[in-house]
Amino acid sequence: METRWFSSQWCTEADATQARIVALTTDFGLKDPYVAEMKAVILSVCPSAVIVDVTHEVEKFNIRMGAYVLAAAAPYFPRNTIHVAVVDPGVGSQRRSIIIQTKQGFFIGPDNGLMFMAAEKQGVIGIREITNPKRMLPQVSYTFHGRDVFAPTAGHLANGVPLTDFGPELRDLVKPKFATVVKEKNELVGEILHVDDFGTIITNMSSSEISAFPQESVVNVQLPKLKLKLDFRKSYTEVKVGEALVLVGSQGFVEIAVNQGSAAANFGAKPGDKIRLSLT
Amino acid sequence: METRWFSSQWCTEADATQARIVALTTDFGLKDPYVAEMKAVILSVCPSAVIVDVTHEVEKFNIRMGAYVLAAAAPYFPRNTIHVAVVDPGVGSQRRSIIIQTKQGFFIGPDNGLMFMAAEKQGVIGIREITNPKRMLPQVSYTFHGRDVFAPTAGHLANGVPLTDFGPELRDLVKPKFATVVKEKNELVGEILHVDDFGTIITNMSSSEISAFPQESVVNVQLPKLKLKLDFRKSYTEVKVGEALVLVGSQGFVEIAVNQGSAAANFGAKPGDKIRLSLT
Amino acid sequence: METRWFSSQWCTEADATQARIVALTTDFGLKDPYVAEMKAVILSVCPSAVIVDVTHEVEKFNIRMGAYVLAAAAPYFPRNTIHVAVVDPGVGSQRRSIIIQTKQGFFIGPDNGLMFMAAEKQGVIGIREITNPKRMLPQVSYTFHGRDVFAPTAGHLANGVPLTDFGPELRDLVKPKFATVVKEKNELVGEILHVDDFGTIITNMSSSEISAFPQESVVNVQLPKLKLKLDFRKSYTEVKVGEALVLVGSQGFVEIAVNQGSAAANFGAKPGDKIRLSLT
Repeated sequence: METRWFSSQWCTEADATQARIVALTTDFGLKDPYVAEMKAVILSVCPSAVIVDVTHEVEKFNIRMGAYVLAAAAPYFPRNTIHVAVVDPGVGSQRRSIIIQTKQGFFIGPDNGLMFMAAEKQGVIGIREITNPKRMLPQVSYTFHGRDVFAPTAGHLANGVPLTDFGPELRDLVKPKFATVVKEKNELVGEILHVDDFGTIITNMSSSEISAFPQESVVNVQLPKLKLKLDFRKSYTEVKVGEALVLVGSQGFVEIAVNQGSAAANFGAKPGDKIRLSLT
Repeated sequence: METRWFSSQWCTEADATQARIVALTTDFGLKDPYVAEMKAVILSVCPSAVIVDVTHEVEKFNIRMGAYVLAAAAPYFPRNTIHVAVVDPGVGSQRRSIIIQTKQGFFIGPDNGLMFMAAEKQGVIGIREITNPKRMLPQVSYTFHGRDVFAPTAGHLANGVPLTDFGPELRDLVKPKFATVVKEKNELVGEILHVDDFGTIITNMSSSEISAFPQESVVNVQLPKLKLKLDFRKSYTEVKVGEALVLVGSQGFVEIAVNQGSAAANFGAKPGDKIRLSLT
Repeated sequence: METRWFSSQWCTEADATQARIVALTTDFGLKDPYVAEMKAVILSVCPSAVIVDVTHEVEKFNIRMGAYVLAAAAPYFPRNTIHVAVVDPGVGSQRRSIIIQTKQGFFIGPDNGLMFMAAEKQGVIGIREITNPKRMLPQVSYTFHGRDVFAPTAGHLANGVPLTDFGPELRDLVKPKFATVVKEKNELVGEILHVDDFGTIITNMSSSEISAFPQESVVNVQLPKLKLKLDFRKSYTEVKVGEALVLVGSQGFVEIAVNQGSAAANFGAKPGDKIRLSLT
């Protein structure tokens, strides 16, 4: 983990007064009462908030998976959406609780890399540490900042409380390793961010990074245990059922997919694996 | 797959101006960002939409299961609800994107049989193909029409955009095989639509189709590997714990159930199996 | 199962007119159409209701687990929230359908112990049996009172229908065994209510019941197959990764946890197990 520094560009904070949608991304699952408690707190503070679930099925403590889902979904939300993201193995330790303001909206959660990709994509305007106890629940537990710190922060922000009220300005964010793609000679070197429910392999490379690859070309794909030559196409349906391809997926990331099949199962690949792409 | 033809009976399209509830039925699961992206697009187009999840746990590509859940849930929704249904193995191919207007509301999704039972039950008034790019996202992906075509269509419809604006009128719908029940002599021949979480076997036969069966009678049930004689009753609790029965379930379909047990596990039955019912 | 008697203290029922949030706790899962049908009925009766899911992943027929989740989540909801809770193995039998009014809000569901802990915590003001067919769906199925009785009741209550309209007053509630903690000499004897997704063991003992235990003390924990001596601490992070502890968890119950691990897997404990705590 490294940190990245941002210059301060606080524009008018009146933007926040338009916020109404609160979107939640957590690893809490839907079986336990935790997500409901966060929603109950948000609605207690701001009864007119519209709450949308991004997902609560992030694998426990898997910051990379949470970061992927948040970065994929956030661009589609209306301007001024308040995202609350909680995958927080360090809760109760010294990690900071933060609000990131971007050109599109707000991200509230732990400063552990979870919100970095999503926020950076939108253009970071400023960062605040959440330290004002008046914006938290009266009793903050040691284990559940989602309910006791982040949910009331979201409610107050949706009510139009100015960002300056929550705590001091910060200039740096934790930048996670999985947010990095390197260009080595002719190769793009990245990692697998996520395997979706269909078994599609989603890398951390964006469409702009493979803009040099012509459509209909053949791509060398190197996974930890396997080298493949795959067609670079636009759609699953351009290859036969059961065949693999490289494409820019609907989430804006480069994917390895099998038409109506599971690329991850076929190729034994999993999140965190290194992946190298080059033209043949 | 066959198609069924409908006469055109477009009544006043002003109905759509009352629509506010958008109900979602998909096979996307809740782990990935896909459902959230659909919701984000709907709220971006129509900020006052009230979004209700029907289910996102349809088995991947299982059109029959999606069709069952949609047909079961739709009758309970308020007038003018806009249903968006996406179980779409043919996305990116030539299957049509459609809006069905019924006497009760609207169904938006692929024309692959998914919405047929639900819409036919309500009385089809008219059908439109979705072709107008102004009602889609600026960039339509090849793999995710749920977000790029169906979600913005739902948002615009909720905003009161007239149906004529979305594309040309259609007169036919794909009718799926699983929507058919045949009467052969004294037998009703249908198929298993679904096995619910309790293990209850739900057939494609409706209460009207077994209206000739007297309550308290004994029914011959023929499954692929098994013949049974079961009591026809009104409620699980009319038989002992662990005993099986035939009933008209709460979803309006004929069911084979075991009181506090799993009929599917007991009888080795699964969705798609043929089922024959007759009086003893 | 025993029953507990309450004196009648109906205060002004005008409170109900402020109710708008309807919170759902069921064992229906999210795969089937059942939850959506309940929501559709609530919105049909009261279009301005704001529906919040507590959970639908209660284990089938597991009243204790449902009771735990409801008791944990309810305190965080705004005043006048209407809780609908359905874990109902006795549906179709003689168990009563009830509304409990508390000092904080309302609980609607079967009188089988499911809502007892949550309602008692808030202070019971009065109880009504739901018997008025005008406040149910026109046709009440034998198997699905969640949709046919409890959902329309919630909708009408949210619309401001007075409690007297739903049915006669009751003075007693079924009190479940799992709601009891006994003090035997120096020991607290209770049971395991729940094991959460993280594997944390949640008991039925509240923070007030172990108020005599000093922080930083060592506690004897007796499970059915195991005796342990564990540190009593405030936070997971006060012990090393992989180490166990006793704490008052964020849900207000005494928990046995392992920092970033599963206490239930380590100690072979499960819901319903007896548990005894004493100071060393």
